[in-house]
Parts: sequence; C-alpha cells; structure tokens
Amino acid sequence: VSSVRTFHEDVRSALGGRHVVTDQDLTASHCIDWTRRWHGSTPAVLRPGSTDEVAEVVSAARRHHVALVPQGGNTGLVGGATPLAGEVVVDLRRLDRLDPVDAAARQVTVGAGVPLATVHAHVAPASLAFAVDLGAREQATVGGMVATNAGGIHVVRNGPMRVQLVGVEAVLGTGQVLVANMAGLEKDNTGYDLPALLCGSEGTLGIITAARLRLVARPEMVAAALVGFDSVDDAVWAASTLRGEPAVVAIELMTADGLAVVADFLQQSVPLLPVPAAVLLVEAAGRGDVTAALGDAVAALPGALDAAVSDDAAGRERLWRWREGHHEAAAALGVVHKADVTLPTGALARFVMAAPALVERVAPGSTTLVYGHAGDGNVHVNVVGPKPDDDSVVDAVLAAVLERGGSVSAEHGIGVAKRAWLVRQRGEVAVTAMRGIKSALDPDNICNPGVLLP
Amino acid sequence: VSSVRTFHEDVRSALGGRHVVTDQDLTASHCIDWTRRWHGSTPAVLRPGSTDEVAEVVSAARRHHVALVPQGGNTGLVGGATPLAGEVVVDLRRLDRLDPVDAAARQVTVGAGVPLATVHAHVAPASLAFAVDLGAREQATVGGMVATNAGGIHVVRNGPMRVQLVGVEAVLGTGQVLVANMAGLEKDNTGYDLPALLCGSEGTLGIITAARLRLVARPEMVAAALVGFDSVDDAVWAASTLRGEPAVVAIELMTADGLAVVADFLQQSVPLLPVPAAVLLVEAAGRGDVTAALGDAVAALPGALDAAVSDDAAGRERLWRWREGHHEAAAALGVVHKADVTLPTGALARFVMAAPALVERVAPGSTTLVYGHAGDGNVHVNVVGPKPDDDSVVDAVLAAVLERGGSVSAEHGIGVAKRAWLVRQRGEVAVTAMRGIKSALDPDNICNPGVLLP
Repeated sequence: VSSVRTFHEDVRSALGGRHVVTDQDLTASHCIDWTRRWHGSTPAVLRPGSTDEVAEVVSAARRHHVALVPQGGNTGLVGGATPLAGEVVVDLRRLDRLDPVDAAARQVTVGAGVPLATVHAHVAPASLAFAVDLGAREQATVGGMVATNAGGIHVVRNGPMRVQLVGVEAVLGTGQVLVANMAGLEKDNTGYDLPALLCGSEGTLGIITAARLRLVARPEMVAAALVGFDSVDDAVWAASTLRGEPAVVAIELMTADGLAVVADFLQQSVPLLPVPAAVLLVEAAGRGDVTAALGDAVAALPGALDAAVSDDAAGRERLWRWREGHHEAAAALGVVHKADVTLPTGALARFVMAAPALVERVAPGSTTLVYGHAGDGNVHVNVVGPKPDDDSVVDAVLAAVLERGGSVSAEHGIGVAKRAWLVRQRGEVAVTAMRGIKSALDPDNICNPGVLLP
Repeated sequence: VSSVRTFHEDVRSALGGRHVVTDQDLTASHCIDWTRRWHGSTPAVLRPGSTDEVAEVVSAARRHHVALVPQGGNTGLVGGATPLAGEVVVDLRRLDRLDPVDAAARQVTVGAGVPLATVHAHVAPASLAFAVDLGAREQATVGGMVATNAGGIHVVRNGPMRVQLVGVEAVLGTGQVLVANMAGLEKDNTGYDLPALLCGSEGTLGIITAARLRLVARPEMVAAALVGFDSVDDAVWAASTLRGEPAVVAIELMTADGLAVVADFLQQSVPLLPVPAAVLLVEAAGRGDVTAALGDAVAALPGALDAAVSDDAAGRERLWRWREGHHEAAAALGVVHKADVTLPTGALARFVMAAPALVERVAPGSTTLVYGHAGDGNVHVNVVGPKPDDDSVVDAVLAAVLERGGSVSAEHGIGVAKRAWLVRQRGEVAVTAMRGIKSALDPDNICNPGVLLP
C-alpha cells in the first residue's frame, strides 16, 4: 500500500494538513533569498513541529526520492536555503524549544527554529551571554547558524558558532535521529566530533533540530572606540596587536572611501576629523574599568591618531552605526555584489588597499566598500555598479584572494554562490573526502543536494 | 612487476633500509604501551622522514592489504598505539619540522613527531605559549595529541587540542595527502571542518603528519593556590564559580583520601592542616597582580577554608606536586586501573563521594584515588588492588558514570580499552555515522583497524 502513497500524503499524515503548505502565495517568500539574488520554486513548504516529525519528513523523502532544502530565518547570503531546483522546503521555525538556562554548566539547549535575539534575551537574566552576534539577529535561527557555522562581530574573541556548540541533535540524511552530547559534557573524547562536522555542513548531511550552546559571562561594562589611522597598514597592524588584549571583543576595519559613502547615507559627518585613511571600531567588555583599559590599549597603538570613545549604550550605538551603516549604505546605491573573504595576516593590509583598483579594472565606475572583521583577517568587499547577474567583479576579487593564500568564504559559507570555487579553495583531496562523508550520512543525496559540493 | 613485490620491498625502497626496522630488540619498545597493560608484536617499525614517505607507506599498505598502527611518543593510556594484532608500526618522530613562529598570526606549524615540550620551548621567546599542557610533555608528540584530541590541565580555560588546531596535514587511508588550512586562516567557512574531524579520530582515518597550531599570550604572572573545603560539594561548587574568572587557567580537585596516599609517597605533610575533606588546586595567569586577583577570588568562595598561595616557580611546583603526585603515588602501590570520566556539572560531587564505596563493593580492600580536572567535570578514578587483567572495577565505575549521564572517556580516548563502551556512550546512530565516515576516508580499513570502532 505504502508504495502507491505519494510523498505529500505521507507528510500530510505525519505533520497534519495545515503544516504542509502548497499555496503559492504562502510559499513564495520561501523561494527567494535575503539578497534577492536567488529565486526558486517549491511544490510545498513543510513545517514540522518536533524532531520526530522532521525524521518522518526525511524518511518520507528517502522513500520517495524527494530532495529537501532546510530553511530557518532565510538570512543566508549565498543561496544555501533557496529551492533552486524545485526542492521541498523544510521550514524549521516551529522547533522553538527554549530550555531553562543551565547556570552551573553555563549552557542552554534550544530548538533549531529559535531566533538568535531570543537566545540573547533568554540567557541575559542568568547574567550570561551567548557569544555569537550578528546583524540579522532578529531573523537568523540557531539551526541555520549551526548549519552555516555563523560568525559575526565577536569571533575575534570567542570564535564562531562551532566553538559555541557543545552538542547537537539532527536528523541525518538516513532519517535517523542523531543525539550528540546534548547532555552538554564539557569533555567527551569518545570518537569523531560529529557536532563539529555538522556545524558548517550547510544542510548537506542532515537537518539540525536542536543545539546545546555554550554561554559566556555577561559583561558588566562595555566600551567602544573609533580610532583613526594614517594608513590601512597601521590599522591592520593595530588590529593584530589588539587581538592580544583579553578585554577586546570586536575589531572592525573601515576605510575613508567607505566612510564617505556611509556619511552620505546617514547625512552625518564622520566623528573623526580630518577623516583618517583607515578607522578601527574597537569594542572592549568585561569587569572593572573597561573604558580606561580600552583607552590605554588604544593610546599604546603605534600610528593611532584621534579616537572617539563611548561607554554608554547610546554612544556605542552611534559609533557602531558607522560600521553597520556600510551594509545599508551599499544596498541603498543598488544591487550589491558581495565577497566575504579572509586573507592571511600578513597579506590583509595590501589586499584592502588593492581591492578598489582591482574592481575598477573589471567594472569601471563602480562603488567599492571594503570593511569588516579585521581581527580575524576577514573583510567584506561590497561592490555596487555591475548588473545583478554579472559575477565578473566577485570572480576577480575571489581569484585575487586565492592568489594571496586567502579564503573565498570567511563566514558566509559556500551555498550555491561559491560552489564553483570549492575545489580551488580546499583541493581535490579534501573535496573527495567531503563527498565520501556526504554519501555516508546522506546516501540518497536528498539533503540540500544543490549546495556546497560541486 | 609491482604485483610480486612485497610490502617490505616497497617500504624499503621508499624509506631506505635503515628506516624499516625489523630487529625485535629494536621493535620491542614499540609493542608495549606506557601503562604496560597492552602488549603486541609487529613485523616492522617504519620511520618515514617526510609526508611524502608517509604517503608511500600508506599507499603500499593499501596495495598489500597491510594494517598500520601510527605511533608518536607512545604515551597513550588506552592501547590505541599498540600493534595488538601484529600490525606494522609507523613511528612518526622523524617528522620533526619546526617552522618559525608566526607572531603576527599567533600560530606555528610543527611536524607530527615534535614533542609537546619542544613546542613550549620553541614559542616562548616570541612571548607566546601553547595552551595545551600535560604531564607527559617530554614524550607526547603533537601528532599523537592531535589524533587523540589531548586535554590536560588548561582545558578549563583554553579547550583541548581540537580548539588549538587551526590546520592539519594528514595522509588519509586512501594514501592521499590532505592539506587543510595549513596557511592558518582564522576564518575559512568552506565546507566540512576536516581538521576537527581528524582530531580525536585516533589514527582510524589517516595519519597526521603536521599541524598548524594556535598560540596564546605567554602570561607575565602565574600564581597557584591550594584551597581547602569542608566537603566535596563545596569544592565542586567553587570550581564551577572559578570557571567564570577570566584569569583562572587550572582547577584541579583532590580529596583527603588521595592526599593521604600522596603524603605517604612524598613523605611530607599536606600543607593545609587539619587536612580538609576536599582541596582545589587553582592556578591563575595573566598580566597585572594575578596573585591578588587569585587571593580575592578564593576568599570570595563560599565554604573555602585555609589556602596556601604561591607566585614563585618553586612554590607553585611544590603545590602542584600534590596534584601530580597522585599519578606516581598510585603507580608505586601496584598496577593502576584507570577510569577517566566526565560527569554532568550537577552530578560531579555526588559521584566523587560515591566512587570509593562503589569500588569497595566490587574489589574490597582496594585503594581508590579520585582526582582531576574539576573545572571540566572530568575526574580520574585510579584503583590499585585488583589483578592486572581484572576489568571489573573499571567496568563498574564506567557503568555508574553512564547511569549518571557522563562520559566513559573524558580525555584519554577510546583506543582498544574502551571500545566495548562506544555504542553505549554515543548510541547506534552516531557509531553507524562514524563507520560510514571511516569507510569513506579509509576504504580498505588499514588505519588502526583495531582501535575506536567496535
């Protein structure tokens, strides 16, 4: 009997009809990504409400040879959650489990569908904090952040999502439910680290359903400073020095060109005058007199010019506007072509200085903003000017990054957008190993088959 | 022609005759482990001098269906590097590459055969430190420490080997050379994290040949304190509190019973009188007045009694003798049965108190020492009394740990010793996934086939 049932019948029986959404008006928002560059279509959006329901969905997909695209807040930037080949979308936002904070262990267990901002709010009353933060915090979900090993502004101090992930629950491509260290043991040296493997696998090995997250102390004091430098070289050298300061939790780089675009957008003047060639936004957090510690650290930096320091929330937000405004200012000018790259420490400054000319050669008259997480060697190159489908600028930037020994994706992942670059980045041996791992955990290739692996 | 050549001819031709050791007088030390519990035999010990030579060894092993056991300093505690089934031993200590310290990136690249103590000494002049430290530092090699995800006394602050591993070079079971982020990019979100997967795989996926390691600031000041408590409960609660102190880098637990055994062995009196029910050894490191910070933190602990504090090297060593003496004091009494376990935070104190009675029921008249890395929930249960081949005490301890939601191997790994426990610890789904990954990376099962997977 089962053999004549369709996939839709199976999932309707598993989830109930109202959680199998086929109305195109309702599925449309799931078929386009946050950048509006990737458009697809889907026969159905499934909304499982429990891990067991996800397992039933994956098992049904195996039986009927149906490809699945898992989706959380749909805030990815590389097309990794868009049903480009007509896959079925699995919307995980109903997995909204939010366990009590385990203060003694400094951990919390949350469902894949919980937005980042909800985690932040949930752990704050226990005087704890979740170490990952990023601009899309209201929409981005924990499951998606685990699947993509999300980064953000505090990686320089606390590492990306993979470092915060103590344990994971997932439905593998086999349909089996994997529960890996959800008890949150700090040390468990018994075999392969499956949480670390699933983190960053972009939905290609299975579907994350819940995560056990590490928490850090909630800082009592936070201070931020905008620091000017005569040259990008000086700023990058300063970023490297600041990484060694235990209280420093964010080190963001901006250049005069980018600040000019943001100043136009914000209709404000840069708070450092004359506008320096390069600016670092440095945030420090902890106990005691963090403001003084930050001031001392900044004053000791060779090449540091003027600095604007603030330790109240409103003042910090005004300083951060200059960094976060880059993204919006670029978007206000047109379609933004984004390259999210890491350079080796010694090659970062030269790359930041060379990028605008490199873009100008490929796409004359474009506007280029180079900014980002200088403490990690990670910068975002945003280019406005080329047509939406013209990949030539990003290709040229990524090729230059590879030549210099860098990475074509620092934190956004591979998705569909960077798939063609994976072998050049990681080498044939690594990609062959990844394919073997994918075949073992997703033998029928039903989990995000269009993503990551070329 | 190749088909009639033997494995020995192939490896002699690849390595040169003097690095294919078959003389039993010379191979004997490679056939017994550090605990002297595991004895095997081998037809040959191979000593490759380069990554390419390791690749030739693995390729020859594939061609001739020969099983390999990789070996570094041979300091493992679970039989993971002993040729128990007559495997060929691959001694990696000639891979002694020691690249200049990359001070800007705070990283260093070293060969698999470099001992831990050599790494410490190599990075110190750059005012940097390698965050992993453990008792066997003179013999334990980086390759073995990566393969086993070694832990040690600073995990509570800096995490185990996996956290220090930026990149890895390895020869997979296919014979292919994998080079994964040896350029040391802090952020590279391009596909599966193969360094994290290989770390802790205990030689079952391939042979580690080199590692790119993260370094931390060398602390300017270090201070240690022995702190007494009226109860194990108070000490474990204090350990949990101390984890939140940024300067605290080690939190080790001892009990009155263990200290009495060590006092006999050292022929000294415990420096806290009367001897408290439980003692923490707390180490703090950093800049500024670390001694005062440690004193303040200790004084604020509920239930803390007397404390002995020292900030000079000789004084710290005297305090550490009480912790490190546990290991030697137990060995001096006879064959030591070791369980290296983690408990969930809330279950640790009760387990520490219950363990001696549990052992007494199974092996009356035994001596039991319970001590270890309380900040991580990790304790070592050492039992002297039962016959060398009698596993019943360790089995009883591990069963009690599993019942309480803990791990049967916190940091020593699975090896051959804990293989029978893997499924109970991780579950069938996880072990099936591991087998699949093993098949993908070591398709002919030639890499440490007797280890880890049951």
